[in-house]
Amino acid sequence: MKAGVKCIPCTVRAALDMAEKASNDERKALIILRKTLWFLSAVDSLEKTPAELHTTVSRIVKEVTGNPDPFKSIKEECNKRALKLASSLTKMVNNLDRLERLKVMFKASVYGNAMDFEVEDYDFKLEEFESNLAKCLDRDPIINDLDELLVLLKNSERIIYLLDNAGEIVFDKLLIQEVTQLFKCKIVAVVKQSPVLNDVTVEDASMVGLPDICEVISTGEDRIGVHLDTSSPAFKEALRTSDLVIAKGQGNFETLTEYRSIIKKPICHLFRVKCKVVSNYMKVPVNTDVISVWKP
Amino acid sequence: MKAGVKCIPCTVRAALDMAEKASNDERKALIILRKTLWFLSAVDSLEKTPAELHTTVSRIVKEVTGNPDPFKSIKEECNKRALKLASSLTKMVNNLDRLERLKVMFKASVYGNAMDFEVEDYDFKLEEFESNLAKCLDRDPIINDLDELLVLLKNSERIIYLLDNAGEIVFDKLLIQEVTQLFKCKIVAVVKQSPVLNDVTVEDASMVGLPDICEVISTGEDRIGVHLDTSSPAFKEALRTSDLVIAKGQGNFETLTEYRSIIKKPICHLFRVKCKVVSNYMKVPVNTDVISVWKP
Repeated sequence: MKAGVKCIPCTVRAALDMAEKASNDERKALIILRKTLWFLSAVDSLEKTPAELHTTVSRIVKEVTGNPDPFKSIKEECNKRALKLASSLTKMVNNLDRLERLKVMFKASVYGNAMDFEVEDYDFKLEEFESNLAKCLDRDPIINDLDELLVLLKNSERIIYLLDNAGEIVFDKLLIQEVTQLFKCKIVAVVKQSPVLNDVTVEDASMVGLPDICEVISTGEDRIGVHLDTSSPAFKEALRTSDLVIAKGQGNFETLTEYRSIIKKPICHLFRVKCKVVSNYMKVPVNTDVISVWKP
Repeated sequence: MKAGVKCIPCTVRAALDMAEKASNDERKALIILRKTLWFLSAVDSLEKTPAELHTTVSRIVKEVTGNPDPFKSIKEECNKRALKLASSLTKMVNNLDRLERLKVMFKASVYGNAMDFEVEDYDFKLEEFESNLAKCLDRDPIINDLDELLVLLKNSERIIYLLDNAGEIVFDKLLIQEVTQLFKCKIVAVVKQSPVLNDVTVEDASMVGLPDICEVISTGEDRIGVHLDTSSPAFKEALRTSDLVIAKGQGNFETLTEYRSIIKKPICHLFRVKCKVVSNYMKVPVNTDVISVWKP
Protein backbone atom coordinates (compact mmCIF):
# COMPACT_ATOMS: atom_id res chain seq x y z
CA MET A 1 0.00 0.00 0.00
CA LYS A 2 1.12 3.55 -0.69
CA ALA A 3 1.61 6.18 1.99
CA GLY A 4 -1.12 8.69 2.82
CA VAL A 5 -0.65 12.37 3.61
CA LYS A 6 -0.75 11.46 7.31
CA CYS A 7 2.46 9.45 6.82
CA ILE A 8 4.43 12.66 6.23
CA PRO A 9 4.07 14.24 9.70
CA CYS A 10 4.31 10.74 11.19
CA THR A 11 7.68 10.18 9.47
CA VAL A 12 9.06 13.50 10.77
CA ARG A 13 7.86 12.70 14.29
CA ALA A 14 9.44 9.23 14.02
CA ALA A 15 12.72 10.84 12.91
CA LEU A 16 12.94 12.83 16.14
CA ASP A 17 11.81 9.85 18.21
CA MET A 18 14.51 7.63 16.68
CA ALA A 19 17.11 10.41 16.93
CA GLU A 20 16.45 10.74 20.66
CA LYS A 21 16.75 6.98 21.15
CA ALA A 22 20.02 6.87 19.21
CA SER A 23 21.81 9.84 20.77
CA ASN A 24 21.58 12.53 23.45
CA ASP A 25 23.11 15.09 21.09
CA GLU A 26 20.47 17.64 20.08
CA ARG A 27 22.64 18.90 17.20
CA LYS A 28 22.54 15.43 15.70
CA ALA A 29 18.75 15.34 16.14
CA LEU A 30 18.55 18.59 14.17
CA ILE A 31 20.73 17.18 11.37
CA ILE A 32 18.53 14.07 11.27
CA LEU A 33 15.38 16.20 11.10
CA ARG A 34 16.83 18.34 8.29
CA LYS A 35 17.88 15.29 6.28
CA THR A 36 14.40 13.85 6.81
CA LEU A 37 12.75 17.08 5.64
CA TRP A 38 14.99 17.16 2.57
CA PHE A 39 14.23 13.54 1.76
CA LEU A 40 10.47 13.99 2.19
CA SER A 41 10.38 17.18 0.14
CA ALA A 42 12.45 15.64 -2.67
CA VAL A 43 10.51 12.41 -3.23
CA ASP A 44 6.89 11.77 -4.09
CA SER A 45 6.09 10.40 -0.63
CA LEU A 46 2.72 9.10 -1.73
CA GLU A 47 4.39 6.80 -4.27
CA LYS A 48 6.34 5.13 -1.44
CA THR A 49 5.06 2.71 1.21
CA PRO A 50 5.01 4.04 4.77
CA ALA A 51 7.60 1.35 5.55
CA GLU A 52 9.99 2.78 2.94
CA LEU A 53 9.69 6.28 4.41
CA HIS A 54 10.51 5.01 7.90
CA THR A 55 13.31 2.79 6.60
CA THR A 56 15.03 5.82 5.06
CA VAL A 57 14.72 7.72 8.33
CA SER A 58 16.13 4.76 10.25
CA ARG A 59 19.16 4.77 7.94
CA ILE A 60 19.61 8.54 8.34
CA VAL A 61 19.54 8.12 12.14
CA LYS A 62 22.13 5.33 12.11
CA GLU A 63 24.38 7.26 9.73
CA VAL A 64 24.25 10.59 11.59
CA THR A 65 24.57 9.20 15.12
CA GLY A 66 26.94 6.33 14.32
CA ASN A 67 24.66 4.18 16.49
CA PRO A 68 24.00 0.97 14.51
CA ASP A 69 21.13 -0.20 16.73
CA PRO A 70 19.23 2.58 18.53
CA PHE A 71 16.58 0.13 19.79
CA LYS A 72 19.09 -2.45 21.12
CA SER A 73 18.31 -2.13 24.82
CA ILE A 74 14.56 -1.81 24.17
CA LYS A 75 14.59 -4.99 22.10
CA GLU A 76 16.48 -6.91 24.78
CA GLU A 77 14.03 -5.74 27.43
CA CYS A 78 11.07 -6.72 25.21
CA ASN A 79 12.47 -10.20 24.66
CA LYS A 80 13.20 -10.73 28.35
CA ARG A 81 9.74 -9.64 29.45
CA ALA A 82 7.98 -11.67 26.78
CA LEU A 83 9.99 -14.78 27.71
CA LYS A 84 8.67 -14.43 31.26
CA LEU A 85 5.11 -14.21 29.90
CA ALA A 86 5.53 -17.28 27.71
CA SER A 87 5.19 -19.67 30.66
CA SER A 88 1.87 -18.03 31.69
CA LEU A 89 0.64 -18.43 28.15
CA THR A 90 1.60 -22.09 27.89
CA LYS A 91 -0.11 -22.77 31.25
CA MET A 92 -3.28 -21.08 29.94
CA VAL A 93 -3.52 -23.41 26.97
CA ASN A 94 -2.30 -26.53 28.76
CA ASN A 95 -5.68 -28.25 29.05
CA LEU A 96 -6.96 -27.37 25.59
CA ASP A 97 -6.94 -29.77 22.67
CA ARG A 98 -4.35 -29.27 19.93
CA LEU A 99 -6.56 -27.29 17.54
CA GLU A 100 -7.85 -24.99 20.29
CA ARG A 101 -4.30 -24.43 21.49
CA LEU A 102 -3.28 -23.48 17.97
CA LYS A 103 -6.17 -21.03 17.67
CA VAL A 104 -5.20 -19.43 20.97
CA MET A 105 -1.58 -19.18 19.88
CA PHE A 106 -2.62 -17.39 16.68
CA LYS A 107 -4.59 -14.86 18.72
CA ALA A 108 -1.69 -14.49 21.15
CA SER A 109 0.71 -13.91 18.27
CA VAL A 110 -1.48 -11.10 16.90
CA TYR A 111 -1.92 -9.70 20.39
CA GLY A 112 1.88 -9.81 20.77
CA ASN A 113 2.11 -7.41 17.84
CA ALA A 114 0.25 -4.87 19.96
CA MET A 115 2.86 -4.91 22.73
CA ASP A 116 4.49 -1.55 22.97
CA PHE A 117 7.43 -1.59 25.30
CA GLU A 118 8.99 1.46 23.73
CA VAL A 119 6.52 4.18 24.66
CA GLU A 120 8.23 7.33 25.95
CA ASP A 121 7.14 7.08 29.57
CA TYR A 122 7.56 3.32 29.71
CA ASP A 123 4.56 2.56 31.91
CA PHE A 124 4.07 -0.99 30.64
CA LYS A 125 2.67 -3.19 33.42
CA LEU A 126 3.40 -6.89 33.24
CA GLU A 127 0.30 -7.77 35.32
CA GLU A 128 -2.03 -5.78 33.08
CA PHE A 129 -0.55 -7.33 30.00
CA GLU A 130 -1.02 -10.81 31.50
CA SER A 131 -4.67 -10.21 32.36
CA ASN A 132 -5.30 -8.75 28.88
CA LEU A 133 -3.53 -11.74 27.38
CA ALA A 134 -6.04 -13.99 29.14
CA LYS A 135 -8.91 -11.91 27.73
CA CYS A 136 -7.54 -12.32 24.23
CA LEU A 137 -8.34 -16.05 24.46
CA ASP A 138 -12.04 -15.17 24.42
CA ARG A 139 -11.93 -12.44 21.80
CA ASP A 140 -11.77 -12.87 18.05
CA PRO A 141 -9.81 -10.47 15.86
CA ILE A 142 -11.99 -7.94 14.03
CA ILE A 143 -10.99 -9.54 10.74
CA ASN A 144 -10.79 -13.26 11.44
CA ASP A 145 -9.84 -15.55 8.56
CA LEU A 146 -8.49 -18.20 10.94
CA ASP A 147 -10.64 -21.05 9.57
CA GLU A 148 -9.47 -20.27 6.05
CA LEU A 149 -5.90 -20.13 7.32
CA LEU A 150 -6.23 -23.56 8.97
CA VAL A 151 -7.19 -25.05 5.61
CA LEU A 152 -4.17 -23.40 4.01
CA LEU A 153 -1.88 -24.69 6.78
CA LYS A 154 -3.19 -28.23 6.24
CA ASN A 155 -2.33 -28.01 2.56
CA SER A 156 1.08 -26.35 2.86
CA GLU A 157 4.39 -28.17 2.90
CA ARG A 158 6.61 -25.12 3.15
CA ILE A 159 5.65 -21.96 5.02
CA ILE A 160 7.62 -18.74 5.19
CA TYR A 161 6.95 -16.80 8.41
CA LEU A 162 7.97 -13.14 8.33
CA LEU A 163 8.68 -11.91 11.83
CA ASP A 164 8.21 -8.36 13.06
CA ASN A 165 9.20 -6.98 16.45
CA ALA A 166 11.25 -8.05 19.43
CA GLY A 167 9.09 -9.29 22.31
CA GLU A 168 6.33 -10.66 20.13
CA ILE A 169 8.88 -13.06 18.60
CA VAL A 170 8.44 -15.16 21.76
CA PHE A 171 4.76 -15.66 20.93
CA ASP A 172 5.68 -16.35 17.30
CA LYS A 173 8.01 -19.09 18.50
CA LEU A 174 5.19 -20.72 20.52
CA LEU A 175 2.89 -20.46 17.50
CA ILE A 176 5.47 -21.98 15.15
CA GLN A 177 5.88 -24.89 17.59
CA GLU A 178 2.13 -25.54 17.62
CA VAL A 179 1.84 -25.31 13.82
CA THR A 180 4.69 -27.74 13.18
CA GLN A 181 3.32 -30.19 15.77
CA LEU A 182 -0.16 -30.17 14.26
CA PHE A 183 0.66 -30.04 10.55
CA LYS A 184 3.29 -31.72 8.43
CA CYS A 185 5.07 -28.64 7.25
CA LYS A 186 8.45 -26.94 7.33
CA ILE A 187 8.56 -23.35 8.52
CA VAL A 188 11.29 -20.87 7.62
CA ALA A 189 11.29 -17.80 9.90
CA VAL A 190 12.57 -14.52 8.49
CA VAL A 191 14.33 -11.78 10.45
CA LYS A 192 16.11 -8.58 9.37
CA GLN A 193 19.79 -8.81 8.42
CA SER A 194 20.68 -5.71 10.42
CA PRO A 195 18.75 -3.50 12.84
CA VAL A 196 15.83 -1.30 11.84
CA LEU A 197 13.56 0.02 14.61
CA ASN A 198 12.63 -2.77 17.05
CA ASP A 199 12.43 -5.40 14.29
CA VAL A 200 14.03 -8.72 15.17
CA THR A 201 17.45 -9.72 13.86
CA VAL A 202 19.33 -13.04 14.08
CA GLU A 203 20.49 -11.93 17.52
CA ASP A 204 16.91 -11.60 18.83
CA ALA A 205 15.95 -14.94 17.29
CA SER A 206 18.85 -16.58 19.11
CA MET A 207 17.99 -14.85 22.37
CA VAL A 208 14.54 -16.49 22.41
CA GLY A 209 15.76 -19.85 21.07
CA LEU A 210 13.96 -19.70 17.72
CA PRO A 211 16.75 -21.50 15.79
CA ASP A 212 16.12 -24.57 18.00
CA ILE A 213 12.71 -25.14 16.46
CA CYS A 214 12.92 -23.86 12.87
CA GLU A 215 15.22 -22.53 10.20
CA VAL A 216 15.91 -18.80 10.56
CA ILE A 217 17.03 -16.71 7.60
CA SER A 218 17.16 -12.95 6.99
CA THR A 219 15.80 -10.64 4.34
CA GLY A 220 19.41 -9.68 3.70
CA GLU A 221 18.93 -6.05 4.64
CA ASP A 222 17.83 -3.47 7.19
CA ARG A 223 14.52 -2.49 5.61
CA ILE A 224 11.12 -2.53 7.28
CA GLY A 225 8.97 -5.17 5.56
CA VAL A 226 9.79 -6.81 2.24
CA HIS A 227 11.59 -5.32 -0.79
CA LEU A 228 12.04 -7.87 -3.53
CA ASP A 229 14.21 -5.53 -5.62
CA THR A 230 16.93 -5.46 -2.96
CA SER A 231 16.45 -8.48 -0.70
CA SER A 232 18.85 -11.44 -0.63
CA PRO A 233 18.65 -14.35 -3.11
CA ALA A 234 18.24 -16.76 -0.17
CA PHE A 235 15.17 -14.92 1.07
CA LYS A 236 13.68 -14.65 -2.41
CA GLU A 237 14.25 -18.37 -2.96
CA ALA A 238 12.56 -19.24 0.35
CA LEU A 239 9.63 -17.02 -0.61
CA ARG A 240 9.44 -18.55 -4.09
CA THR A 241 9.44 -22.14 -2.84
CA SER A 242 6.93 -21.63 -0.02
CA ASP A 243 3.26 -22.56 -0.34
CA LEU A 244 2.05 -20.00 2.18
CA VAL A 245 3.32 -16.68 3.57
CA ILE A 246 2.55 -15.72 7.16
CA ALA A 247 3.48 -12.09 7.77
CA LYS A 248 3.49 -10.35 11.13
CA GLY A 249 3.02 -6.62 11.61
CA GLN A 250 2.17 -3.47 9.66
CA GLY A 251 5.56 -3.15 7.96
CA ASN A 252 5.20 -6.51 6.23
CA PHE A 253 1.58 -5.70 5.35
CA GLU A 254 2.43 -2.29 3.86
CA THR A 255 5.12 -3.75 1.61
CA LEU A 256 3.72 -7.21 0.70
CA THR A 257 0.54 -5.63 -0.70
CA GLU A 258 2.83 -4.12 -3.37
CA TYR A 259 4.12 -7.55 -4.45
CA ARG A 260 0.93 -9.61 -4.54
CA SER A 261 1.01 -10.00 -8.33
CA ILE A 262 4.62 -11.27 -8.16
CA ILE A 263 4.26 -13.52 -5.11
CA LYS A 264 1.08 -15.18 -6.42
CA LYS A 265 0.46 -17.33 -3.33
CA PRO A 266 -1.69 -17.02 -0.23
CA ILE A 267 -0.50 -14.45 2.28
CA CYS A 268 -1.81 -14.35 5.85
CA HIS A 269 -1.34 -11.06 7.72
CA LEU A 270 -1.36 -11.11 11.50
CA PHE A 271 -1.21 -7.70 13.13
CA ARG A 272 -2.60 -4.97 15.33
CA VAL A 273 -3.79 -2.02 13.23
CA LYS A 274 -1.85 0.87 14.75
CA CYS A 275 -2.44 3.94 12.59
CA LYS A 276 -5.14 5.78 10.64
CA VAL A 277 -3.57 5.18 7.23
CA VAL A 278 -3.61 1.38 7.58
CA SER A 279 -6.97 1.57 9.38
CA ASN A 280 -8.51 3.41 6.38
CA TYR A 281 -6.95 0.94 3.95
CA MET A 282 -8.24 -2.07 5.92
CA LYS A 283 -11.58 -0.41 6.74
CA VAL A 284 -11.29 -1.37 10.42
CA PRO A 285 -10.73 0.85 13.47
CA VAL A 286 -7.30 1.67 14.86
CA ASN A 287 -6.18 -0.60 17.75
CA THR A 288 -7.94 -3.67 16.44
CA ASP A 289 -6.40 -7.04 15.60
CA VAL A 290 -6.60 -8.78 12.23
CA ILE A 291 -5.97 -12.27 10.91
CA SER A 292 -6.42 -11.53 7.23
CA VAL A 293 -5.87 -14.02 4.41
CA TRP A 294 -5.21 -12.78 0.88
CA LYS A 295 -5.35 -15.29 -1.96
CA PRO A 296 -4.27 -14.84 -5.59
CA MET B 1 12.19 32.14 22.87
CA LYS B 2 13.67 30.11 20.02
CA ALA B 3 12.15 26.90 18.70
CA GLY B 4 13.38 23.50 19.92
CA VAL B 5 13.89 20.40 17.77
CA LYS B 6 10.44 19.22 18.90
CA CYS B 7 8.92 22.24 17.10
CA ILE B 8 9.88 20.75 13.73
CA PRO B 9 7.63 17.64 13.77
CA CYS B 10 4.97 19.72 15.55
CA THR B 11 4.98 22.27 12.70
CA VAL B 12 4.59 19.54 10.07
CA ARG B 13 1.73 17.96 12.03
CA ALA B 14 0.10 21.38 12.38
CA ALA B 15 0.43 21.89 8.62
CA LEU B 16 -1.67 18.79 7.93
CA ASP B 17 -4.11 19.69 10.70
CA MET B 18 -4.63 23.18 9.28
CA ALA B 19 -4.79 21.84 5.71
CA GLU B 20 -7.60 19.48 6.69
CA LYS B 21 -9.50 22.28 8.40
CA ALA B 22 -9.11 24.56 5.37
CA SER B 23 -10.02 22.10 2.61
CA ASN B 24 -11.23 18.57 1.87
CA ASP B 25 -8.85 18.31 -1.09
CA GLU B 26 -6.07 15.84 -0.27
CA ARG B 27 -3.94 17.09 -3.20
CA LYS B 28 -3.92 20.53 -1.61
CA ALA B 29 -2.91 18.97 1.72
CA LEU B 30 0.03 17.33 -0.02
CA ILE B 31 1.09 20.64 -1.61
CA ILE B 32 0.86 22.32 1.81
CA LEU B 33 2.95 19.58 3.40
CA ARG B 34 5.60 19.84 0.66
CA LYS B 35 5.79 23.62 0.98
CA THR B 36 6.11 23.21 4.74
CA LEU B 37 8.91 20.64 4.34
CA TRP B 38 10.72 22.95 1.93
CA PHE B 39 10.36 25.90 4.25
CA LEU B 40 11.55 23.96 7.30
CA SER B 41 14.51 22.45 5.48
CA ALA B 42 15.57 25.81 4.03
CA VAL B 43 15.57 27.91 7.22
CA ASP B 44 17.41 27.51 10.48
CA SER B 45 14.27 26.56 12.38
CA LEU B 46 15.98 26.89 15.74
CA GLU B 47 16.68 30.58 15.06
CA LYS B 48 12.93 31.19 14.70
CA THR B 49 10.28 31.29 17.40
CA PRO B 50 7.75 28.44 17.34
CA ALA B 51 5.12 31.12 16.59
CA GLU B 52 7.00 32.19 13.44
CA LEU B 53 7.13 28.60 12.16
CA HIS B 54 3.39 28.15 12.65
CA THR B 55 2.63 31.59 11.17
CA THR B 56 4.42 30.61 7.96
CA VAL B 57 2.45 27.36 7.76
CA SER B 58 -0.81 29.26 8.36
CA ARG B 59 0.05 31.51 5.40
CA ILE B 60 0.91 28.53 3.19
CA VAL B 61 -2.45 26.95 4.05
CA LYS B 62 -4.41 30.10 3.25
CA GLU B 63 -2.50 30.60 -0.02
CA VAL B 64 -2.82 27.01 -1.28
CA THR B 65 -6.46 26.47 -0.31
CA GLY B 66 -7.71 29.98 -1.01
CA ASN B 67 -9.51 29.75 2.35
CA PRO B 68 -8.75 33.02 4.20
CA ASP B 69 -10.01 31.76 7.59
CA PRO B 70 -9.80 27.97 8.08
CA PHE B 71 -10.79 28.27 11.76
CA LYS B 72 -13.80 30.56 11.13
CA SER B 73 -16.55 28.16 12.20
CA ILE B 74 -14.49 26.84 15.12
CA LYS B 75 -13.91 30.38 16.37
CA GLU B 76 -17.60 31.27 16.15
CA GLU B 77 -18.52 28.10 18.04
CA CYS B 78 -15.89 28.87 20.71
CA ASN B 79 -17.21 32.39 21.19
CA LYS B 80 -20.82 31.24 21.41
CA ARG B 81 -20.09 28.54 23.97
CA ALA B 82 -17.89 30.81 26.07
CA LEU B 83 -20.55 33.52 26.06
CA LYS B 84 -22.97 30.98 27.57
CA LEU B 85 -20.41 30.16 30.26
CA ALA B 86 -19.82 33.80 31.11
CA SER B 87 -23.09 34.07 33.06
CA SER B 88 -22.14 31.04 35.20
CA LEU B 89 -18.82 32.66 35.91
CA THR B 90 -20.30 36.01 36.90
CA LYS B 91 -22.76 34.23 39.20
CA MET B 92 -19.87 32.37 40.85
CA VAL B 93 -18.08 35.60 41.77
CA ASN B 94 -21.23 37.59 42.61
CA ASN B 95 -20.82 37.50 46.38
CA LEU B 96 -17.08 38.08 46.48
CA ASP B 97 -15.50 41.42 47.24
CA ARG B 98 -13.93 43.38 44.39
CA LEU B 99 -10.34 42.21 44.90
CA GLU B 100 -11.37 38.55 45.26
CA ARG B 101 -13.49 38.86 42.14
CA LEU B 102 -10.53 40.25 40.25
CA LYS B 103 -8.32 37.40 41.41
CA VAL B 104 -10.89 34.85 40.29
CA MET B 105 -11.21 36.58 36.92
CA PHE B 106 -7.46 36.39 36.42
CA LYS B 107 -7.53 32.67 37.12
CA ALA B 108 -10.54 32.24 34.85
CA SER B 109 -8.76 34.11 32.08
CA VAL B 110 -5.74 31.79 32.30
CA TYR B 111 -8.04 28.79 32.50
CA GLY B 112 -9.83 30.07 29.39
CA ASN B 113 -6.53 29.76 27.55
CA ALA B 114 -6.71 26.01 28.17
CA MET B 115 -10.05 25.62 26.37
CA ASP B 116 -9.61 23.44 23.35
CA PHE B 117 -12.71 23.37 21.22
CA GLU B 118 -10.84 22.31 18.12
CA VAL B 119 -9.71 18.79 18.99
CA GLU B 120 -10.28 16.32 16.17
CA ASP B 121 -13.06 14.31 17.76
CA TYR B 122 -14.70 17.37 19.33
CA ASP B 123 -15.77 15.73 22.57
CA PHE B 124 -15.81 18.96 24.59
CA LYS B 125 -18.45 18.80 27.31
CA LEU B 126 -19.90 22.06 28.50
CA GLU B 127 -20.86 20.57 31.91
CA GLU B 128 -17.35 19.25 32.56
CA PHE B 129 -15.83 22.57 31.60
CA GLU B 130 -18.23 24.36 33.96
CA SER B 131 -17.39 22.11 36.91
CA ASN B 132 -13.67 22.48 36.18
CA LEU B 133 -14.14 26.22 35.94
CA ALA B 134 -15.55 26.15 39.49
CA LYS B 135 -12.52 24.19 40.69
CA CYS B 136 -10.18 26.79 39.20
CA LEU B 137 -11.46 29.27 41.78
CA ASP B 138 -9.74 27.25 44.50
CA ARG B 139 -6.55 26.46 42.65
CA ASP B 140 -3.56 28.74 42.14
CA PRO B 141 -1.53 28.71 38.91
CA ILE B 142 1.77 26.82 39.21
CA ILE B 143 3.62 30.11 38.68
CA ASN B 144 1.56 32.72 40.48
CA ASP B 145 2.84 36.32 40.38
CA LEU B 146 -0.66 37.69 40.94
CA ASP B 147 0.26 39.80 43.99
CA GLU B 148 3.10 41.39 42.05
CA LEU B 149 0.74 41.99 39.15
CA LEU B 150 -1.80 43.72 41.42
CA VAL B 151 0.88 46.21 42.47
CA LEU B 152 1.73 46.83 38.82
CA LEU B 153 -1.95 47.32 37.96
CA LYS B 154 -2.30 49.86 40.76
CA ASN B 155 0.60 51.87 39.35
CA SER B 156 -0.31 51.70 35.68
CA GLU B 157 -2.25 54.33 33.77
CA ARG B 158 -2.16 52.65 30.38
CA ILE B 159 -2.25 48.89 29.89
CA ILE B 160 -1.95 47.01 26.62
CA TYR B 161 -3.74 43.66 26.71
CA LEU B 162 -2.70 41.20 23.98
CA LEU B 163 -5.49 38.74 23.30
CA ASP B 164 -5.06 35.18 22.10
CA ASN B 165 -7.82 32.76 21.08
CA ALA B 166 -11.50 32.86 20.35
CA GLY B 167 -13.63 31.60 23.24
CA GLU B 168 -11.23 32.73 25.94
CA ILE B 169 -11.74 36.33 24.75
CA VAL B 170 -15.07 36.21 26.65
CA PHE B 171 -13.17 35.67 29.91
CA ASP B 172 -10.67 38.36 28.92
CA LYS B 173 -13.57 40.75 28.52
CA LEU B 174 -14.84 39.97 32.04
CA LEU B 175 -11.31 40.43 33.40
CA ILE B 176 -10.82 43.75 31.61
CA GLN B 177 -14.13 44.97 33.11
CA GLU B 178 -12.99 44.05 36.62
CA VAL B 179 -9.57 45.66 36.17
CA THR B 180 -10.97 48.94 34.89
CA GLN B 181 -13.58 49.05 37.66
CA LEU B 182 -10.99 48.48 40.38
CA PHE B 183 -8.09 50.55 39.06
CA LYS B 184 -7.85 53.93 37.37
CA CYS B 185 -6.38 52.75 34.10
CA LYS B 186 -7.09 52.67 30.39
CA ILE B 187 -6.83 49.30 28.66
CA VAL B 188 -6.17 48.84 24.96
CA ALA B 189 -6.98 45.32 23.75
CA VAL B 190 -5.04 43.91 20.79
CA VAL B 191 -6.36 41.43 18.23
CA LYS B 192 -4.93 40.13 14.93
CA GLN B 193 -5.57 42.15 11.77
CA SER B 194 -6.49 39.06 9.76
CA PRO B 195 -7.01 35.40 10.65
CA VAL B 196 -4.28 33.11 11.89
CA LEU B 197 -5.29 29.85 13.59
CA ASN B 198 -8.05 30.45 16.14
CA ASP B 199 -6.59 33.82 17.20
CA VAL B 200 -9.15 36.56 17.66
CA THR B 201 -9.69 39.27 15.05
CA VAL B 202 -11.79 42.47 15.17
CA GLU B 203 -14.75 40.31 14.14
CA ASP B 204 -14.41 38.08 17.22
CA ALA B 205 -13.95 41.09 19.48
CA SER B 206 -17.19 42.54 18.11
CA MET B 207 -19.02 39.23 18.48
CA VAL B 208 -18.37 39.21 22.25
CA GLY B 209 -18.91 42.97 22.70
CA LEU B 210 -15.35 43.86 23.64
CA PRO B 211 -15.38 47.28 21.88
CA ASP B 212 -18.18 48.32 24.30
CA ILE B 213 -15.79 48.27 27.24
CA CYS B 214 -12.34 49.16 25.88
CA GLU B 215 -10.43 50.31 22.84
CA VAL B 216 -9.63 47.46 20.42
CA ILE B 217 -6.75 47.73 17.96
CA SER B 218 -4.91 45.14 15.88
CA THR B 219 -1.27 44.13 15.46
CA GLY B 220 -1.71 45.07 11.81
CA GLU B 221 -1.02 41.57 10.53
CA ASP B 222 -1.85 37.86 10.56
CA ARG B 223 1.09 36.66 12.64
CA ILE B 224 0.92 34.58 15.82
CA GLY B 225 2.21 36.70 18.70
CA VAL B 226 4.13 39.97 18.33
CA HIS B 227 6.60 40.98 15.58
CA LEU B 228 7.81 44.52 16.05
CA ASP B 229 9.67 44.55 12.71
CA THR B 230 6.41 44.17 10.77
CA SER B 231 3.56 45.23 13.05
CA SER B 232 1.51 48.39 12.52
CA PRO B 233 2.63 51.83 13.76
CA ALA B 234 -0.62 52.10 15.80
CA PHE B 235 0.15 48.88 17.66
CA LYS B 236 3.78 49.87 18.25
CA GLU B 237 2.67 53.26 19.54
CA ALA B 238 0.16 51.66 21.94
CA LEU B 239 2.86 49.32 23.14
CA ARG B 240 5.35 52.20 23.54
CA THR B 241 2.98 54.37 25.55
CA SER B 242 1.71 51.62 27.88
CA ASP B 243 2.98 51.13 31.42
CA LEU B 244 2.22 47.43 31.52
CA VAL B 245 1.79 44.64 29.00
CA ILE B 246 -0.64 41.79 29.73
CA ALA B 247 -0.17 38.99 27.20
CA LYS B 248 -2.39 35.95 26.82
CA GLY B 249 -1.26 32.61 25.43
CA GLN B 250 1.87 30.83 24.26
CA GLY B 251 2.19 32.68 20.96
CA ASN B 252 2.55 36.03 22.69
CA PHE B 253 4.94 34.49 25.21
CA GLU B 254 7.16 32.88 22.55
CA THR B 255 7.53 36.14 20.66
CA LEU B 256 7.57 38.78 23.44
CA THR B 257 10.53 37.07 25.13
CA GLU B 258 12.50 38.07 22.01
CA TYR B 259 11.67 41.77 22.49
CA ARG B 260 12.17 42.25 26.22
CA SER B 261 15.22 44.48 25.76
CA ILE B 262 13.28 46.72 23.37
CA ILE B 263 9.99 46.83 25.28
CA LYS B 264 11.67 47.60 28.62
CA LYS B 265 8.48 47.50 30.69
CA PRO B 266 6.75 44.91 32.84
CA ILE B 267 5.11 42.08 30.94
CA CYS B 268 2.61 39.75 32.53
CA HIS B 269 2.05 36.42 30.78
CA LEU B 270 -1.19 34.53 31.39
CA PHE B 271 -1.39 31.11 29.79
CA ARG B 272 -1.75 27.38 29.94
CA VAL B 273 1.57 25.67 29.14
CA LYS B 274 0.63 23.39 26.27
CA CYS B 275 3.82 21.85 24.91
CA LYS B 276 7.15 20.37 25.97
CA VAL B 277 9.25 23.13 24.44
CA VAL B 278 7.58 25.91 26.44
CA SER B 279 7.36 23.61 29.47
CA ASN B 280 11.15 23.11 29.39
CA TYR B 281 11.74 26.83 28.93
CA MET B 282 9.44 27.72 31.84
CA LYS B 283 10.60 24.77 33.97
CA VAL B 284 6.99 23.78 34.77
CA PRO B 285 4.98 20.74 33.64
CA VAL B 286 2.84 20.68 30.52
CA ASN B 287 -0.88 21.40 31.16
CA THR B 288 -0.23 23.81 34.00
CA ASP B 289 -1.31 27.43 34.25
CA VAL B 290 0.98 30.40 34.79
CA ILE B 291 0.60 34.04 35.81
CA SER B 292 4.18 35.12 35.25
CA VAL B 293 5.47 38.68 35.60
CA TRP B 294 8.68 39.72 33.88
CA LYS B 295 10.24 43.07 34.85
CA PRO B 296 13.07 44.93 33.09
